[in-house]
Order: sequence, then C-alpha cells, then structure tokens
Amino acid sequence: MTLDPVLARIDADLPHATNRLLELLRIPSISTDPAYKGDCDTAADWLVADLQSIGFEASKRPTTGHPMVVAHTGGDGPHILFYGHYDVQPVDPLELWDRDPFDPQVEDTAKGKVIRGRGSSDDKGQLMTFVEACRAWKAEHGTLPANITIFFEGEEESGSPSLTPFMEENRDELTADIALICDTGLYGDSTPAIITQLRGLLGEELTITGPNKDLHSGMYGGLAMNPARVLARIIASLHDDNGRITVPGFYDGVPDLSNELAAAWDDLKFDHKEFLGEVGLSDPAGEVGRRPLEMIWSRPTCEVNGIWSGYTGDGFKTVLPSEASAKISFRLVGTQDPLKIRENFRKMVQDMLPADCAVTFGDHGASAAGQMTTTHPAFDQARKALSDEWPNAAAYVGCGGSIPIAGHFKDILDMDAMLIGFGKDDDQIHSPNEKYDLSSFHKGIRSWARILDAMTR
Amino acid sequence: MTLDPVLARIDADLPHATNRLLELLRIPSISTDPAYKGDCDTAADWLVADLQSIGFEASKRPTTGHPMVVAHTGGDGPHILFYGHYDVQPVDPLELWDRDPFDPQVEDTAKGKVIRGRGSSDDKGQLMTFVEACRAWKAEHGTLPANITIFFEGEEESGSPSLTPFMEENRDELTADIALICDTGLYGDSTPAIITQLRGLLGEELTITGPNKDLHSGMYGGLAMNPARVLARIIASLHDDNGRITVPGFYDGVPDLSNELAAAWDDLKFDHKEFLGEVGLSDPAGEVGRRPLEMIWSRPTCEVNGIWSGYTGDGFKTVLPSEASAKISFRLVGTQDPLKIRENFRKMVQDMLPADCAVTFGDHGASAAGQMTTTHPAFDQARKALSDEWPNAAAYVGCGGSIPIAGHFKDILDMDAMLIGFGKDDDQIHSPNEKYDLSSFHKGIRSWARILDAMTR
Repeated sequence: MTLDPVLARIDADLPHATNRLLELLRIPSISTDPAYKGDCDTAADWLVADLQSIGFEASKRPTTGHPMVVAHTGGDGPHILFYGHYDVQPVDPLELWDRDPFDPQVEDTAKGKVIRGRGSSDDKGQLMTFVEACRAWKAEHGTLPANITIFFEGEEESGSPSLTPFMEENRDELTADIALICDTGLYGDSTPAIITQLRGLLGEELTITGPNKDLHSGMYGGLAMNPARVLARIIASLHDDNGRITVPGFYDGVPDLSNELAAAWDDLKFDHKEFLGEVGLSDPAGEVGRRPLEMIWSRPTCEVNGIWSGYTGDGFKTVLPSEASAKISFRLVGTQDPLKIRENFRKMVQDMLPADCAVTFGDHGASAAGQMTTTHPAFDQARKALSDEWPNAAAYVGCGGSIPIAGHFKDILDMDAMLIGFGKDDDQIHSPNEKYDLSSFHKGIRSWARILDAMTR
Repeated sequence: MTLDPVLARIDADLPHATNRLLELLRIPSISTDPAYKGDCDTAADWLVADLQSIGFEASKRPTTGHPMVVAHTGGDGPHILFYGHYDVQPVDPLELWDRDPFDPQVEDTAKGKVIRGRGSSDDKGQLMTFVEACRAWKAEHGTLPANITIFFEGEEESGSPSLTPFMEENRDELTADIALICDTGLYGDSTPAIITQLRGLLGEELTITGPNKDLHSGMYGGLAMNPARVLARIIASLHDDNGRITVPGFYDGVPDLSNELAAAWDDLKFDHKEFLGEVGLSDPAGEVGRRPLEMIWSRPTCEVNGIWSGYTGDGFKTVLPSEASAKISFRLVGTQDPLKIRENFRKMVQDMLPADCAVTFGDHGASAAGQMTTTHPAFDQARKALSDEWPNAAAYVGCGGSIPIAGHFKDILDMDAMLIGFGKDDDQIHSPNEKYDLSSFHKGIRSWARILDAMTR
C-alpha cells in the first residue's frame, strides 16, 4: 500500500473534511455543564456513525458521566491506540467572542485561513486529523492500514472522572502496542513536535485563620494578628532570591538536563523574548542560571494561582480579616514525589505559623511527572514521517503542562504513549475566539497518514 | 438652677424617653442605600419636631445628599455645640438578626435590659442621651442651661460627602466654644471615658500587573513573572521581625508615650487576654516591647484589609494571574504626615518591583491623627461630672479608630472637641442584633445633665 495516493486524496478531500469538522463543532458538547449532557451524547453518536462509515466497529460506551467512544479495525500489523477527547470547554465570557462559538466557520486572517469555533483546536480538530487520515487510507486502499483502536473521551475538560475506572474495566480491549495522543501543539509555527516529557502537578489550597470573626482595624489593629499578613509571609518565603523553591527536600529527584537534551534544546533556538513578548513580558523570571526552555519544560515550579482575604469589593472597609486563603500549584519533574512534597510543604507552613493562627489544607490533586520511552521504534518512525511533511525537522520537546492520560496509559495498561499535535500557541484554547489553523488541520491529516505508513511499512 | 431635680426627672421620665428613642429607631434611615432616601428625610423631620418641642429653633437643612439638622437655643453662657448622626448602617445579612432591625424593642438579657435595633447604639441612642438631658432641664427649669447648638448629620455611615462643605458654608453658625461628640464608648463596662487621642487613617489600594492576560501555569509557569508572588513579597516586607513598619520615614512624628499617660493607662489595668480572648486570640501581635494599650491607641499600624488575585472560586484552575491587588490601611498617630507616608509607601513599592511588573495605586483617603486639647476647662469639668455619675472615675483614653469629625471641627471651625459616649464593646454596631444597654441610655442622659451643669455653673 503506497502513501502518495493517500496524500493526494487528503488534499483533494480537504473541503469535505473541513465540512465534517464544522458539523462536529456545531454540537455544543460542554462536559462540565449538566445543561449540555444531551449534546455530549450527540457528539459521541456522531463520532460512532462517522467511524462506522469508514470501517470501524465503533460503539458508544456508557459511564456514570459522559460516554466513551471505542472503535476497532482488528486485523494484523502493529496494534495502535489513538486517543482524543470530544468534549469542550465552556464558552464564557460569551461577549468576548466575535462569533457564535458553536456556529464555526473558516475565516481568512492575516496569517492564513483558520477554523474558528469552540473545540476547533482543543480537541475536535485534532482528533479529526487522525480520523480523516484513516478515511483517506480506506478510500484509497479499501482497508485500514493497521490494527487500530480509537478511544475518545467526553470528560477531559471536566476532570476525567470516568477515565481510569473505564480503563481498568476494559484493560484488555484498550491495551495496544503504543498509544498516540493528539492534544498538544507544534513547536513554534512549523516545527512538528513529539513530547518526551511532561511535568507533574501538585495542587494545594490553604486557609490561614486568626480571629474568630472579621475585626475593626481601628479597634484591634496593631494588637490582633492579621492572617493576610501571615499568608503573605508564607507565600513570599516559598522562593529564595535566586528563584529556587524553599520547601525542604523539594529538589530530591530533579535531574539535571543531560548534555544530549541540552544540545537538542539549544538547537531549537527558543526565542524567549518573542515567547514572553506575546504576553507583555520580557525577562525570564525563573531560577537564576537556567535556560528559559528548562524553566518551562524541565524545572519544577511553584505558582500562586489565587489569593483572597478580607474585603475585595469597591471602596474601602477597614476590616482586619479573620482568614486568608491561597491556591498554590507545583509543577513537578523527574522523580519528584508529589505526596512527599505535599507533606513537606504543609509542615513548612505549619512551622511558620505565629501564635493564634491555624491552617487548614485542601487537596487539589497530585500527579508525578511523565517521561516518555523514546526507545520505542514508533518514536523514530514518527520523527522521520513528520520531518517529511513539515518545513522543519521534527523535534523532541518537553511540555510544561500536565497531561495525566499519558501516565494512565503507562500505569494502568503498561503502554507507552507518544504525544503529537498540531495546535499553535495562538489557538486561544479555553478562551474566546478559539481557532485551529486550516494548515494545522490539513498537514495534521497528512502527518498521521505518513506516521501510519511509517509504522506499518 | 440645680441639678438634683433634673436627675430625678430623668429617672422618672425614662420609660417615655425610651419610647421616643424606639420611635426614632423605627425610621430606617440607611444613608448609603438610595431606597431609604425618604426615610432619612423622615428621621430629620422627626428630630426637628422633637427639638422644637423642647425650645430649640430647629430646622432641616438641605444638602446635595441627606439633610442636616441644626438647632439653637441662643442665650447666654458658654456656647456648646453637640454633634451626632441620625443615619444608620445597612442591616444585611438580615437573616442573622433575631428580630426585625427596624422593629426595636427593650429586651431582657443575662446582662440586663437592652434596646435592640439598628442604630440603637450607633448613633440614635447616643444622640438622644443629649436631647433627653436637654428635655429634662427644660421641663424642670423652663429654660435650657446654656447657649446650645445641635448639629445632626445624616451621612456619617456613607462617607459624609456633604459634611465639610456644609461646615465651610455655615462657619459662623456652627462655631461654638467647644464641640461635644457622642459617638464613642465606655472604657470596659462601667468606666466613663473621654477620648483624648484618635488615630489617623491612610487608605491605599494597589494593583501589581505582570503578563497582559491570565496565563496557563503549565505553559508559562517558571518563565513568566507572577504578580501574586510580587504582591506577597511586598506585603511581607511591610513589617520587620519586631513588628515595626518598614516604610521609610514612617516613624517621623510618632511620639513616645509620656510618663504621665503611661501611668494613667497602666492604672486602667487593661486585660489584653480578655480583650483578645473574645475574638479567639491571646497574644499581642504588634511591636515588640510595647504595651497592648499602646498598640491599639498610640502606635501606628499597617494592616492588610483585603487581597485578591487569580482564581478564587471552587476547585482549581492552574492560572498564572495577570494581576494581584490589595487594600492596605495605615493607622497614624502624633504628627505623622499621611501624604508624606503615602508618597514613601508608593516609592517603596515601586522600588521593589521586578522587571516586567508595574503598579497602579488607588487613594482611599488620608487623615492625620487627632490630639484633643485637654487643657480646655470643659475636659476637667466633664471628667468630674462623669466620675460623679459612674461607679469608676472617668478616664482619659485613646481611641484606635479614626473619627474625622473631630479633626474637621478643629481645622474648619478652630474649635476643640470632646468625645464622650456610652456604647459598649459588645453593642454589635455595624453588625446584626445591634443593641444599646438601657443603662447606657439612662446613665448617658444623666451624664450629660451633669456635664451641662458642670460647664454652666
């Protein structure tokens, strides 16, 4: 089975492929909002029917939340699982959208054509790149190119409550030789990227309590402990003057960048001025002496995600607040142990409390960092295939975010995962006016056709 | 004119005086809420009519907001101005009240009878102590005891926007030998108190900005500056380890406690354990080495009144916030210059900003501390009169709060002010279930009768 006619068919079929994606984008499958439960079901039905039309044995599989879609081709060759998610983020603030988020359209922009609408990049447009590659293959050769399992989730944007139970209950059905995940981006505008490391995530919430009610700052100020001051001292102490995190034992398990990876990343010529410039910043604000790419890919972080205390409305109230709270997250790398760090963080906070203050903690999840096993032959095959499609050679890159599904494939199904995606930094995922470049969609489809070819040749 | 029959008449008339107060309390004169504008007018009318009934030339005086009430007796003797305010705080949260806040009633409690209702202590009950003292005097002697001017405001709880313009426009009419202000409390439960010093108040709001929008902490965390961290560092740096405030020049103009005042305050045997224990605290949290009473009366403070940044709702969002804000107030003493401190504070914050951060400031007022001129003979007269009425001798005390009217009388009318009131710490002013002890009301009326006698004898 040859690749070239498949690529030609993908090119010729792009208008129809785009229309199919627009159809899927019109279904408002917002998973976090119960009002859209029926729409999530409709999106799953649409995918089942589409996959059946190209030869998959596809079915909608109930969960206690939104359904999974599972589809198989069966047959010989390597067994490849492809993962994506059909649910989307809410659309508020709606007034910041330039069009109805669920009336998607192809738009001309200064940077080329884009598909505008909620879910276009995250993740409906991305998952359809793989489906369209399969469609072209089937149309051209009458059969699908490998033993493919497709696994679509409908709860990724709402915490994936059904995911791991479903994987555990359907272990045999879902276990393949490798998992492909299409939910990430290119490096820059034209360098295809394979993610080889993901940061872990520890989420903590803390509330410092002092007086048993809000006090009048004239009557008590100066004599009574102010929990907002205590919280500020704790947060200020979490980093030293060199940007290092001061939680005891925090750097246990943080590897230094290997010479090989350092050289590869230096080759990427990451322009931090441009990257930061797009969000109004200029200077790397992480650990002194580290490369900017290390700061976002391979170094652990501690960020304040939210703080609140006292009176925060218009005007002024001279209140001495009874409590102060913060949400704090740690991005983790290497073999840092999230639960040990949680324990050490909490002890550090406890040790900093002055008399009359107490603290309560909330747990917002803990996942370790992920390291992909790039020795699996699929990595080299995909790298070459992607390099054939794009202007620049494919790069192994890190990802500062946390994509727990990759860890679940490893932990539950003992299966390596390869993350390849075609999103761009300016896609505005989770935000108003989300878009997916038509070129991302088109070249994404072609990329998967090439990768399938390379993996099954 | 003798005092004893006036006191006897006050005792006999207490049930009627209480009923008059209940009548005034039934008028919901919430000044900050436009829905109650008519009620504020009604309260002013009620006071005009009541003052006219006891021989005052009283009138309602329009402002751009709620009206003032001004009344005069004319005549010989010292010219005394009495100030109070007839407007009240809003009543929310209404569900925490045990009764309708505007259906006041005398209730029996474990600590004695109380008048329960919004405004009972702040300030309708207090202002009526003076009116009832005048009424008894007039009834007994057929005339009022001095050249008295009464000045009631209806906007004290909503920032007094009309106050200083009205004082400036009516300078001659309002200038007297001394101003009496009844809007403060006893010291403890049974020691009458004359306020001799008030702290000033400087209100500041600041917003630290970093990235031009909220960022994803996975994508940018570690590389991008987080304004919430910057704000925490600034707030944490405002106090040193000994509780001293670090704003440059902050202590310029802060006097040490005189030996005389130190001895007088030590005599008060302030029980900070009890004072703090009522709000769930135990340890003085102010400057190391200072008396607890100094911390709330004569030392300057810096308090965080509110902080907010990033995501503060339920659950978790891994956002790197684009800005972080705080409301901060300074209580000032002695001759500290509020505007100079504002300037130094803002410069200090500016100097602490890292690259890529900016700050904007908001101004929430600036008033210097007030020091009463206790050499005016009225102070000694009032102290003796109060000591005759109450179980304990009257004390000269400080007040940690800020009562700008005292400063206005001095600045605009060049008139000393004497603050005497009969509220108690547990009156719950500004809160649900506000009350005024019937004994505060009764002995408050008797106290003013004695003070008028002492000042006009």
